[in-house]
Amino acid sequence: MSYFDVASTAPLHPVARQALTAALDEGWADPARLYRSGRQARMLLDAARETVAEVLGCRADEVSFTASGTQAVQLGMLGALTGRRRTGRHLVHSAVEHSSVLHTAERVAADGGSVSVAPVDRQGRVTAPEFAALLRDDTALAVLQSANHEVGTLQPVEETAALLGDVPLLVDAAQSAGRLPVPAGWSLLTASAHKWGGPAGVGVLAVRKGVRYASPLPADERESGRVPGYVNVPAIVAAAASLRAVRAEAETENARLHALVDRIRRQVPQLVPEVEVVGDPVHRLPHLVTFSCLYVDGEVLLTELDREGFAVSSGSSCTSSTLTPSHVLAAMGVLTEGNIRISLPPGTPEADITRFLDLLPRLVADVRAPLGLDLPAPAGTTDTLVLDMLGKRCPLPVIELAKRITEVPIGGTVVVLADDAAARLDIPAWCDMRSQTYAGEALPTDYGFTHGTAYLITRTA
Amino acid sequence: MSYFDVASTAPLHPVARQALTAALDEGWADPARLYRSGRQARMLLDAARETVAEVLGCRADEVSFTASGTQAVQLGMLGALTGRRRTGRHLVHSAVEHSSVLHTAERVAADGGSVSVAPVDRQGRVTAPEFAALLRDDTALAVLQSANHEVGTLQPVEETAALLGDVPLLVDAAQSAGRLPVPAGWSLLTASAHKWGGPAGVGVLAVRKGVRYASPLPADERESGRVPGYVNVPAIVAAAASLRAVRAEAETENARLHALVDRIRRQVPQLVPEVEVVGDPVHRLPHLVTFSCLYVDGEVLLTELDREGFAVSSGSSCTSSTLTPSHVLAAMGVLTEGNIRISLPPGTPEADITRFLDLLPRLVADVRAPLGLDLPAPAGTTDTLVLDMLGKRCPLPVIELAKRITEVPIGGTVVVLADDAAARLDIPAWCDMRSQTYAGEALPTDYGFTHGTAYLITRTA
Repeated sequence: MSYFDVASTAPLHPVARQALTAALDEGWADPARLYRSGRQARMLLDAARETVAEVLGCRADEVSFTASGTQAVQLGMLGALTGRRRTGRHLVHSAVEHSSVLHTAERVAADGGSVSVAPVDRQGRVTAPEFAALLRDDTALAVLQSANHEVGTLQPVEETAALLGDVPLLVDAAQSAGRLPVPAGWSLLTASAHKWGGPAGVGVLAVRKGVRYASPLPADERESGRVPGYVNVPAIVAAAASLRAVRAEAETENARLHALVDRIRRQVPQLVPEVEVVGDPVHRLPHLVTFSCLYVDGEVLLTELDREGFAVSSGSSCTSSTLTPSHVLAAMGVLTEGNIRISLPPGTPEADITRFLDLLPRLVADVRAPLGLDLPAPAGTTDTLVLDMLGKRCPLPVIELAKRITEVPIGGTVVVLADDAAARLDIPAWCDMRSQTYAGEALPTDYGFTHGTAYLITRTA
Repeated sequence: MSYFDVASTAPLHPVARQALTAALDEGWADPARLYRSGRQARMLLDAARETVAEVLGCRADEVSFTASGTQAVQLGMLGALTGRRRTGRHLVHSAVEHSSVLHTAERVAADGGSVSVAPVDRQGRVTAPEFAALLRDDTALAVLQSANHEVGTLQPVEETAALLGDVPLLVDAAQSAGRLPVPAGWSLLTASAHKWGGPAGVGVLAVRKGVRYASPLPADERESGRVPGYVNVPAIVAAAASLRAVRAEAETENARLHALVDRIRRQVPQLVPEVEVVGDPVHRLPHLVTFSCLYVDGEVLLTELDREGFAVSSGSSCTSSTLTPSHVLAAMGVLTEGNIRISLPPGTPEADITRFLDLLPRLVADVRAPLGLDLPAPAGTTDTLVLDMLGKRCPLPVIELAKRITEVPIGGTVVVLADDAAARLDIPAWCDMRSQTYAGEALPTDYGFTHGTAYLITRTA
């Protein structure tokens, strides 16, 4: 299976699994107990807290572990609002926050608070001045995500924070923690371990020293009084270990995934008619891309992709059971129907992307076929056909070229991506023999690939 | 190490570990997703819910999974009170509930509700009429534990429930779930998986159909809208598997642990002067016993026991960091100082109890020594010495008898517990040779043992 839904949950990182197994042996006891196994669990917990604090760029005593990212958001928002209730009960958040933020804001409003929502542009981004313009004298909290969970657009967290004065900013870093450095300027930070390859059951709520906070829940002495309930040491140890591992791998892996997403962003509109790729093409999460296909039911397309072994998400995340139109896409003013979100786990092979792009046009066409629509041709398919022969030895690249050149019209171009040195000789030779026109070489990056050589053939015969 | 603190947390049951490992492979995806791995996680979650419901004796759709027993208690209490706010905001609970209940009640009172606390007798038990007498027209919820977490006394849940009329009863079954059948009469039930050998991170909140409930937290569609946040499928699968396994083993294991606790209850006052064993000696949890030693700091004794390889708990559970006097012992009107709680995990070998009872008198005496007190002799040591030679082949029982008979005064009794058939011949023979008096056989259960034969020797020479 090709799992392209890491924004929902990431497969357990191998380091997390090792750490979990070890911590089930070494850290299973109650870290509040004074006997040896309890003290050992406490030491593992302390070390995990240090690790998470170091990666997030804060002090260990600012970090509390929650049971989920959603719990971190709820406690963070309600705790900050309760702590600052003398200032007021006004909350500002962006229109494209995660549903946990929106639902908490609904609860705040139902309990007599007031809420202002900052609009976003067509890329899904707030502007710092527009966001800050919503502040009032009674504003007790502002909430802004580090990056959007549906379209990948990065938010201007630092610029926004700089305009907020005394109002604390809660940054929901669920989609970026581990992958990208945490932006400066936060007073409260939330994240979720299972998004970075840690186990389920661990969220992070960091609260800067000096930020007023009062627990919205009944008292409990654990986790600095912020998160009630028995502390899940083995899972926390595994979460910290995977956070460190993912962060260490991020620089190289981000560049690779960024290029794969570029390829999807470029090729999908060339392969599928009436499609809109959304979100910022550059200032975005490295691994996430969303597009919407006109006339298509996202759930049907998701089911077809699942049948072919692709796990992707559709519609608003966290509400797949209802599949109501995504509030994120609605706020951006972009197409919401036939929505597919691709979010790539670390290590996704390029071949999986190739197979996805090979398959997608047919699946979308199949879904649309019963409608009998006369759709315009997509931007690129009839004129240019890209054949990914990376890793294939000659004569395979030439065989594929011979089989598929008739898919482009006379005058159209076939691009063969190959990394077998023999292709450089064989492809021009084949063109000569078959009266096709060899048009020279191009960079693989012109076609969304990261390596190999692009050989261009103009169909002449 | 001898781990005697299963009431804090149980070591992971082997079945739980197996199930967890398997579910990390099979059930890691988001159960809300529609693709194959998501559906697979959903199926595992559904099966786990069925298992837990079956063991607890309710419907699967009445069971929600929380992140901890504390969260289950908080959500259960606040959710039931919110759901019945038209009836009123009065809460009744017993004086010996877990701190999570007490802290939630404090929050209810701080938010304008009112709370009545039912007293307990010297065994730590409420009476149903006294509890029910606290009901008022505006009583919205009653809370009663199935069994006390510090002294093991079982509560009269069914009799109490029968007197409550329309008022829903929340039963906190954290200490008994898996070990004992769930008592009838509950409207809401809470439990915690790590107490029965499941992993940390899983609590249970069951709410009977028809019981009014309104989530006290922001909306979230997961777990029937009762528990926000990503669902921890692997841990839930492991929790359900271990619940089933523990329940299946409970009948035989309970009887064995009950006898071991009987032995501790009987022998500690014989071995240690000025000690009080508390809680109901009969109608109690099978595996848990608490005693308090006058003139002793519980934390110091705990540290000494830890040094000798025994992990026990002291003082009020969940507040070991503060070691304030236990509210449970205070409500019972019994001694709180020098408090030690022993709670035995399944499979505890009898030899561990023997070693504990051998060691305890010296440790307590050492702790008390600097005080220079002139303490009365304990009830039994000087007159009767019990030697556990179970599993030891002759001549070891006779050697031990010869070495230690002088520990009792002339006229005192040595009891040799042995299961080697040769002892029946050798012990009387040794008595003849050494001019001691062989006084015959007794049942092992007379001395808190479950098997073997008790040989009685009166010291004569």
